[in-house]
Amino acid sequence: MQLSTRHLLGIKDLLLSDIELILSTAAQFKEVLQRPIKKVPSLRDTTIVNLFYENSTRTRISFELAEKRLSADTLNFSASGSSVSKGETLLDTVNNILSMKVDMVVMRHSASGAPHFLAKHIPVAIVNAGDGINEHPTQALLDAFSIKEKLGKLEGKKIVLVGDIMHSRVALSNIYLLKKAGAEVMVAGPPTLIPKYIKEAFDIQVEYNLEKALQWCDVANILRIQLERQNQVLFSSLREYNLAYGVNKKLLDSLNKEIVILHPGPINRGVEIDSDVADSKQSIILQQVENGVAVRMAVLYLLSNKQNFA
Amino acid sequence: MQLSTRHLLGIKDLLLSDIELILSTAAQFKEVLQRPIKKVPSLRDTTIVNLFYENSTRTRISFELAEKRLSADTLNFSASGSSVSKGETLLDTVNNILSMKVDMVVMRHSASGAPHFLAKHIPVAIVNAGDGINEHPTQALLDAFSIKEKLGKLEGKKIVLVGDIMHSRVALSNIYLLKKAGAEVMVAGPPTLIPKYIKEAFDIQVEYNLEKALQWCDVANILRIQLERQNQVLFSSLREYNLAYGVNKKLLDSLNKEIVILHPGPINRGVEIDSDVADSKQSIILQQVENGVAVRMAVLYLLSNKQNFA
Amino acid sequence: MQLSTRHLLGIKDLLLSDIELILSTAAQFKEVLQRPIKKVPSLRDTTIVNLFYENSTRTRISFELAEKRLSADTLNFSASGSSVSKGETLLDTVNNILSMKVDMVVMRHSASGAPHFLAKHIPVAIVNAGDGINEHPTQALLDAFSIKEKLGKLEGKKIVLVGDIMHSRVALSNIYLLKKAGAEVMVAGPPTLIPKYIKEAFDIQVEYNLEKALQWCDVANILRIQLERQNQVLFSSLREYNLAYGVNKKLLDSLNKEIVILHPGPINRGVEIDSDVADSKQSIILQQVENGVAVRMAVLYLLSNKQNFA
Repeated sequence: MQLSTRHLLGIKDLLLSDIELILSTAAQFKEVLQRPIKKVPSLRDTTIVNLFYENSTRTRISFELAEKRLSADTLNFSASGSSVSKGETLLDTVNNILSMKVDMVVMRHSASGAPHFLAKHIPVAIVNAGDGINEHPTQALLDAFSIKEKLGKLEGKKIVLVGDIMHSRVALSNIYLLKKAGAEVMVAGPPTLIPKYIKEAFDIQVEYNLEKALQWCDVANILRIQLERQNQVLFSSLREYNLAYGVNKKLLDSLNKEIVILHPGPINRGVEIDSDVADSKQSIILQQVENGVAVRMAVLYLLSNKQNFA
Repeated sequence: MQLSTRHLLGIKDLLLSDIELILSTAAQFKEVLQRPIKKVPSLRDTTIVNLFYENSTRTRISFELAEKRLSADTLNFSASGSSVSKGETLLDTVNNILSMKVDMVVMRHSASGAPHFLAKHIPVAIVNAGDGINEHPTQALLDAFSIKEKLGKLEGKKIVLVGDIMHSRVALSNIYLLKKAGAEVMVAGPPTLIPKYIKEAFDIQVEYNLEKALQWCDVANILRIQLERQNQVLFSSLREYNLAYGVNKKLLDSLNKEIVILHPGPINRGVEIDSDVADSKQSIILQQVENGVAVRMAVLYLLSNKQNFA
Repeated sequence: MQLSTRHLLGIKDLLLSDIELILSTAAQFKEVLQRPIKKVPSLRDTTIVNLFYENSTRTRISFELAEKRLSADTLNFSASGSSVSKGETLLDTVNNILSMKVDMVVMRHSASGAPHFLAKHIPVAIVNAGDGINEHPTQALLDAFSIKEKLGKLEGKKIVLVGDIMHSRVALSNIYLLKKAGAEVMVAGPPTLIPKYIKEAFDIQVEYNLEKALQWCDVANILRIQLERQNQVLFSSLREYNLAYGVNKKLLDSLNKEIVILHPGPINRGVEIDSDVADSKQSIILQQVENGVAVRMAVLYLLSNKQNFA
């Protein structure tokens, strides 16, 4: 089985069969990660560069572990202190790295579309590890994997994304994926953080009342509030955000069912999520992190076109 | 043989038999480091994260080399540019990393007690690589290893710690270890840098006159003066510190015996130690660095509970 | 076959036979890099530290890849956030690292002569990865390798170095190498960026007119303009530099022959080189980057004195 694409630029362009192949391959790798020896030799002759133009220790470590457990050689390249700060173009930087015989590029960039631009110009596989406010496809895949692991399937499940929908690449990738997989999707949050067009563009529901949103859903994926947004006039204060949109235990207990809680991390305790929820049994936040390594192993493995899965 | 503890948080809680086990295991690893092939496969299925919330290239490199020579996979995580700066709690950061199936944590933190806090909440072994002004146990172990290598034993030896005892985790870990091992311990330095309570608390000697201290001892462990302390009123200037407490060749030659000189590094030449001492045959400063890798290999190996020592 | 030297400090002190040995060994390693499995076990028991006191992601990555493909263990040490910033001397830092049983040092430093100083005091092989405005020997070797690969030989070829000759360690290393190899050398650029003494000192030609220089040569090695030089009065503006000394397609098309274009990178498009040249078939800029890994493998291998070439 092969993916229909040579890159993972976003969920938007994946077929449902691609998503299913990644998730089922990830399930096999998750099984590997339970063994005493967590490594497979699959990518032992492959060199992968992690090209991070934005800081993200968490995502970078997850990819790096995935690469090491596939036995790939890894190179870490961060923009600070590099030739980037000497005025080199993105394409020149990447072409230089590729000339050193690198086989795959994992890339995070603050500009939406940066990996798509690269994909038109370079001959190796690119994995988008987050581009601007566009997509973060491996996050959506690991979220989907985690929901499926918990609830058995995605189809027909009701999933609400809560928070800053406007600026969230996690939200956008999740919406694409969940719709393709046949889930029902809602977004919830303050009107200032939800794009006006979103209901029509994606055929999803919009809800400004958190309690109603949670009453409706099977799963709530709580997005991180970027603390720096406070200085913009998008919401009045972290305290007020927490009062209106923070998910707490009391609120969850008031529902007549037990919903599943996800969060892409890092969490702001007492802002978008309270500790009594983050640390509860309903939360699968740490499972998401664990599944992230398996999902990224699957993506890298499938894009490499190697057949020596062990 | 096994350690009585699952973590190495400090020397304070170790049994003498733990210390002896670590030092004898380190002697075996030191022998490995003399071979052409300096690697053993002991931790080949182990992933270790180096979690450094304070900069310390020297200690980080020593641990990283120890890990690589045990064939462990290593991850480096430094606080700058990470999710830490995005407001995540210490425990959330570590739980996230552990969810990725990391087996051990080596941690340096500016807050005293940070690794002890972690040890209560996470299921894997923690090695304290320095916490605030509390302890730096692997430094005390490598100092002890180096003294024992030079003088045959610790018991009954007279060892003086010279300098900023007040703020030194190296001093505190050394005092704990040397007392347990039956050495006689003295601290020496300006009154402003020696805690009032220390004599009674630890049953050690205090001396404000450097020459008398050196006359008394077999071994002097010269502590680094943190240059930034100058701006506090703890001592008047680096020049005056050097005149009163700097260890120089003339002073050593005036003694009627040859004492052994240690320093945890990095040294300030012309401040707490003069070049004619640092580079002399009495100094075992570089042996300390070499022994540091062997001692850290021993600690990591013993805490891992693997039996495939090679 | 062995090198006549224990270190690679500069091209100045190499014999022609050393240069030829490095280039022929690099050709063998380049062949290795074309294989599916790009690794050889040659340095599997060797630990190499990359000691970068100046930022240079590009050169550091090239060395790191070369080391990994030789199966060496690598340690990266950068000056920022290290004991260097705590006031330790260069020699103390290096001696500390060597005490950890490191076998080779690759070093970049902003001070000319820093690796030569080290070589007098430490017992292991040093590779100069660029020192101040003195030398950058592996760059000159990879330039030579690339020219020879393209034109068959260096002897008798006419090579012009264009740009900031005054501050360029790349220029100096190239001049030494090309003269030893029997090439004809010219430097071209604005009078403010060419040392007055250079013609006599090195027996090379000087030309202030770019068109005449290009008419004369077989190969033009276009040096990078350090953008920060603009604030000095060495040239009036980047725009004017480009008009007088920027290499563009129109200029190349006006010549009655096809010359080969090199650039050490990172390139400033529209300053010293225009895109229609950088991306043309005459440019071998990306081949230089590829060859850099092979040349650095050869240097590290030859300095290590290992015989298990595979």
